[in-house]
Formats: sequence, C-alpha cells, structure tokens
Amino acid sequence: MKSTTAAPEPRQLTGKGQATRARILEHTAALIYRNGVHATNNEQVRRAAGVSGSQLNHYFPTKESLVLAVIAWQAENVLSLHRGDEFDSFEDVEGFRKWAAFYVGYERAFHEGCSLGSLASEIIKTDLDVHDELSEAFTQWRLIFRDSLARLQRLGRLSNDADPEQLANLLLAAFQGGMLLAQIAREISPLRDALRAAIDHVESFAITPDS
Amino acid sequence: MKSTTAAPEPRQLTGKGQATRARILEHTAALIYRNGVHATNNEQVRRAAGVSGSQLNHYFPTKESLVLAVIAWQAENVLSLHRGDEFDSFEDVEGFRKWAAFYVGYERAFHEGCSLGSLASEIIKTDLDVHDELSEAFTQWRLIFRDSLARLQRLGRLSNDADPEQLANLLLAAFQGGMLLAQIAREISPLRDALRAAIDHVESFAITPDS
Repeated sequence: MKSTTAAPEPRQLTGKGQATRARILEHTAALIYRNGVHATNNEQVRRAAGVSGSQLNHYFPTKESLVLAVIAWQAENVLSLHRGDEFDSFEDVEGFRKWAAFYVGYERAFHEGCSLGSLASEIIKTDLDVHDELSEAFTQWRLIFRDSLARLQRLGRLSNDADPEQLANLLLAAFQGGMLLAQIAREISPLRDALRAAIDHVESFAITPDS
Repeated sequence: MKSTTAAPEPRQLTGKGQATRARILEHTAALIYRNGVHATNNEQVRRAAGVSGSQLNHYFPTKESLVLAVIAWQAENVLSLHRGDEFDSFEDVEGFRKWAAFYVGYERAFHEGCSLGSLASEIIKTDLDVHDELSEAFTQWRLIFRDSLARLQRLGRLSNDADPEQLANLLLAAFQGGMLLAQIAREISPLRDALRAAIDHVESFAITPDS
C-alpha cells in the first residue's frame, strides 16, 4: 500500500476494525471475481459488506487502495493453498497431478478463471498503480513450483537435466493460459489438456527407483 | 455482428467507405492494445483515425459493435500470420521453434501481451456480448496447431502416441499464459521458458529418420 494513502494498516486496527476491513475485502474480492474490477463500484461493495460509505472510505480511501488490498488477499489465498496440505507440498510428480485435478474439478475455473490471473489480466493495462504487488505475487507463486522441483532433484527423484525455473514457468503458464482458454471456450478441456501435457513433460524427468 | 445494429456490413460499403472503416479499426485496435478497452473512448478514436463523430457512429453505432470488429480484426491478423509463410506452416517441430522465437523476440509481448488474448482477458467478464466471436477465434487458432500436428503424424514425423488436440491446447495455453506472466514480470523469460518447454514436450514425440 502506498504511503500517500490515509488508510490505516491492518495491524493498527482494533479487533473489530480488522474484522470490518476483512469483511469488506472478502465481499469486494467476490464481486471482482464475478464481475470484474470495472463493473464493481462502491455502492455494490457497501451493500454486500453491510458498511456505510464513511466506513468504506475509512479503510479504503480510493479504488486503487481497495484493488491493491484485493490483490494481496487473493495472492494470500492462492499461495496458502499451494503451500498447504492440499497438495502434499509437491513431494513427487503425483503432487502436481493432484494440484491439476483440483483445478480441473473446480467449476468456477471455466466461468471466472483464476482468481488472481483474471484480476491481473483485467487491470494490467489500466493506470492503477498495482504492478509491483502483482509481480511479487506471481514471483512467489512461481517460486513454490521451482523450489519443489529443485527439492525433488536434491532427493534424487528428478533428473539433473530438468531446469526447475523453466518447468515452473511452464506449469504456471499452462495454468494461466489454460484458465483463460477454458473461460473463453466455456469448457474445461483446454485447462485439463494443458496441465496434463505440462505435467507429462515434468514427469519425463522423473527418476523411479527401478531406473 | 448482431442484426440489431444499424452498422453497414463491410461488403455493402464503397471502396472509400471500406477504407474509412478499416482506418477506424486499425487505430482503435492500436489504442485498445496499448491502453485497454476501458481506457479507450470515442474522442480518442476520432482523433487517432481523423474521423468525425457522425462518421464513427455511422460505421460503429455502439462501443460493442466497435469492440466486436476489433476482435475480428485482431483474430484475422493472428490467424493470417499463423497460416502464412512466416512459420512455414509448421511442417516440422522446427516450425514451432521458429514461431516461439518470433514472439519471444517481439518486444511488445512483455509490454502489452497477446493482441487477442489480452483483449479477451480484459472483456471476458464484462457484459459486452462478444463471447461467440472470441470463442470462434480461439477455436480457429487451436485448429491451426492441431491440424499441423495431425499432419506431422500422417507424414510419419510424429508418433501416433501424441495427442494433437492435447498438444495444441498445451502450445496455446503456454503462449497465452507465458504472455500474461511476461507482461506481469516485465521481462520475457516466462514466455521463453514456457514455449521452450512446451515445444520440448512436442519434440519428445518426434520421429527422426534415424530412429
């Protein structure tokens, strides 16, 4: 968040203040995910979150400050999910299959796309000053894949011929591109195909105990 | 174009009318590619194309009709490029490398992304009625890859184990996702990595005369 904004930092808020701020964010994130940034206005946010105009203005004085906080919120959700138990921390190639199956089975994938990627695509050409936050979120996301792949190499489960950085970019690009193509096609097969083929490629570097 | 609009079909126009319509489209496409749909307004289009308000309104009575025509324009450019001599009609895996090198060497890739994909991402959640046109454009694009891969199979240059539909979705998703990630990162490596790894995967199905 920029130093020029008068919005209080979350840590400066009381428990009740933090809860109100979180409620605004949760509802704004949901509205933006469904309708996009441009179609989401203060009136909708106030109604959905049940706050007054002055409350909204207190926590988020500008649309930019609100969008920045939604980026941080969505990034935190995505990164936590990827670091959590859900995908077994990508301990083997099967972990990537599980990750792909999770999103391929996620109905909103082909309605509204990736919660973070679709937001990024929508605002990257606008003059909202959110570039650094977006860039940082996607860097962290790529590092989760890269570090998992590097760990598999150290454990002797992935050939040293594999390039963890390159494969991390393949996985994340196949995911983001597949999400966009699924949204456009209104069916999941572009995402399913892209992830399956990308993980097949990762698996081609796998070392099994028999080999 | 919807039947409810009063805009003349291009084929109904005189040569001069067609030229004016094309000039409006060319300038609008450039403005949208640089600034996005939301930041592009009639006044900018009129100034850039050197037309009056009534001329603009004659050819494109609504913003929706203008955006629809820009989608068709960008789709035509992308599809023609892919079908043209530039990529040797993807006669072998080297054709895909050449395609990737073209876009990796294209500076606007990491400034403004894919001319068609970035437009799709920006408007897919809006209520502009452009879904069928977008979907059709991306279907045609995928078919160019799929048919090329199927032809390589018929020519005995690609294993029958390869799934042309799946690989086409991988290539297009790696391209779209890589373009988005390159835009966000402001550097080309996500696109370069994703395309290289995707084409490596395609190449793993290649049959060389020696094998």
